[in-house]
Amino acid sequence: MRDVSIIGIGQTPVGELWDKSLRHLAHDAVVAAMRDAGIERADALYVGNMLSGELAEQEHLGALIADFVGLRGIEAFKIEAACGSGAAALRLGYMAVAGGLHDLVIVCGVEKMTDAPGADTTSALALAADQEYEVTHGLSFVALNALLMRRYMHEYNVPHSAFAGFSVNAHRNGAGNPNAMFQSPITAAAYQQAAMIADPINLMDSSPICDGAAAVVLVPSDWAGHGRGAVRILASASATDSLAIHDRRDPLFLEAAYLSSQKAYRQAGVTPADIDLFELHDAFSIMSALSLEATGFARRGEGVRWAEDDGARIAIDGELPISTMGGLKARGHPVGATGVYQVVEVVQQLRGEAGVNQVRDARIGMAQNIGGSGATVITHILAAE
Amino acid sequence: MRDVSIIGIGQTPVGELWDKSLRHLAHDAVVAAMRDAGIERADALYVGNMLSGELAEQEHLGALIADFVGLRGIEAFKIEAACGSGAAALRLGYMAVAGGLHDLVIVCGVEKMTDAPGADTTSALALAADQEYEVTHGLSFVALNALLMRRYMHEYNVPHSAFAGFSVNAHRNGAGNPNAMFQSPITAAAYQQAAMIADPINLMDSSPICDGAAAVVLVPSDWAGHGRGAVRILASASATDSLAIHDRRDPLFLEAAYLSSQKAYRQAGVTPADIDLFELHDAFSIMSALSLEATGFARRGEGVRWAEDDGARIAIDGELPISTMGGLKARGHPVGATGVYQVVEVVQQLRGEAGVNQVRDARIGMAQNIGGSGATVITHILAAE
Repeated sequence: MRDVSIIGIGQTPVGELWDKSLRHLAHDAVVAAMRDAGIERADALYVGNMLSGELAEQEHLGALIADFVGLRGIEAFKIEAACGSGAAALRLGYMAVAGGLHDLVIVCGVEKMTDAPGADTTSALALAADQEYEVTHGLSFVALNALLMRRYMHEYNVPHSAFAGFSVNAHRNGAGNPNAMFQSPITAAAYQQAAMIADPINLMDSSPICDGAAAVVLVPSDWAGHGRGAVRILASASATDSLAIHDRRDPLFLEAAYLSSQKAYRQAGVTPADIDLFELHDAFSIMSALSLEATGFARRGEGVRWAEDDGARIAIDGELPISTMGGLKARGHPVGATGVYQVVEVVQQLRGEAGVNQVRDARIGMAQNIGGSGATVITHILAAE
Repeated sequence: MRDVSIIGIGQTPVGELWDKSLRHLAHDAVVAAMRDAGIERADALYVGNMLSGELAEQEHLGALIADFVGLRGIEAFKIEAACGSGAAALRLGYMAVAGGLHDLVIVCGVEKMTDAPGADTTSALALAADQEYEVTHGLSFVALNALLMRRYMHEYNVPHSAFAGFSVNAHRNGAGNPNAMFQSPITAAAYQQAAMIADPINLMDSSPICDGAAAVVLVPSDWAGHGRGAVRILASASATDSLAIHDRRDPLFLEAAYLSSQKAYRQAGVTPADIDLFELHDAFSIMSALSLEATGFARRGEGVRWAEDDGARIAIDGELPISTMGGLKARGHPVGATGVYQVVEVVQQLRGEAGVNQVRDARIGMAQNIGGSGATVITHILAAE
């Protein structure tokens, strides 16, 4: 197998982008990534997307977007793993280049969630959960996460306010990211006073409904040269768990995140102590705590302690910077695009192009994208060349 | 890269399977393939599916099915390329094994199209076409194919009755396949008298709405041994075209089918003359004619001549057997599953296990799966070991 590097990145701003359709969003991200990489052709395009069928009445995105960006004819597929679709597309791109099947691959994550007349976004998001054993009982996706958060608070005797630092940190970092949906910092007091959505999850625990697209260009590392742009993929790993939370051995342990990160650490030859920044899947604040525990950054029940002191230890200048460009919470969570945004942001950090959000001396970054409430987890570890 | 072989196949009967949900269909096919291969574990599962979100209110099929078949934890994704989703999943599995990323991969195509209360199957199938430039004008998927058929009849001065042999051949072969949805032969007269759907496409030009699942097990050919079961994948290739037919240089030439089959011939080191049977994508009879032209079996405007004399030259004992187990027309077309059914049937032929439909001395078989009206085309060439 060959080493694989990222030589180009592109992204649209995240938000309610009513002047851009799904194909235009993908186009803008892909063209930006191709320009950044200095390429004009590609062997394949893999598109991560979850909800185009439900919200844009369009499937078959691979061929559609390949054609729309001027690459008609190349291999192109859509790959779906709920909110983990973006990183799943990257995993596919990695496999194609590492395995020697293609030399020049574009990976795009795209989601158009707003401006969908007649569509029910809450029902659409519930397609990530188990239709027959969870959704039919009336559980929305946020309700499932609310059950997890309540259970965590109960088991470990943690108040809701203990999670504030995750949200404060994300919004603090979003304020420095011109592509973030929310660019205003919030206070812990504002977190506590936010409107309730599904008790105990309130508005400031939740990532927003939004539109966006991000893209990367992959090549064999031998091709990447040693220019400013290249970032090496040290590890690409995924794992699964049951969709239904009640089927799991322990609902508070993200086993797929554990398996996926352990595989990634082995492949990269690193330990959690080597990770300079961690783009985790903070779709809800409870997911931040559970992710930190499953990936080895905290013991069971102690993930939430990383949020202490307004998230000082997870801030840009903290011990383990997370959500460095705002995370799902403040940059936004266009579901099928998120996994690619995370990786684009790690590349920005490793290139030293993260602006006011730059993590000093960032050499190794990790991105972890979660589908459903932990049923698909894909971990990538990247390093500056 | 490593050579890849198929060591196990599984399929459910195709039909209106009201007693089986989507996950049960996938389960039955995967378990049958694992049993056929004599394996009890796998490294990854790739699921081809087009419409689970629209018709079964369920996305995230990778993890769902991995868990349901007893493989919780392994890598698992859904891949989508409209009606080409099944072969796209096989293409992904091929890449993973050929590239050395996994050793033991299961590929499953599954679709549950009936028994979907409240769902509009015609609208769902139109997600394969260009929403903004075709579907908004009121074009259903069958209407798009009707335009193609009408244009073909006009350009080449061909009567509708000239296509009868494709349907007659498919139903003749379906009668010998216990898994086919339709197991009764039809006559050319019955073809001509069938009810009109979208002029000039009638019921006997069209593949049916149905349920089904098929699966294969892939390993490196070095592992496959030389037992009765192993069939080698000589080529796996895909290409794309515009979704919208009016955007193509020539609506009557399936350029992606041409590109994909040329790549496959080169990879396999064969020519059309070496192909002993061809499972083509006969979703509508016009697609059979266009596929035969684009893949080099007929000159422009002459693909339809393969249907002459009740399809004698494409029959089991003909010059180029096609749709040997009934094809999409008679075996049935559970859209995201079809590409895997085609490959399972080629394996049956190459193993000599096709029963009364056995093609004598079959050594090399080709399967071509088409997404949309030609926007994604994936070609596999297989050979007996």
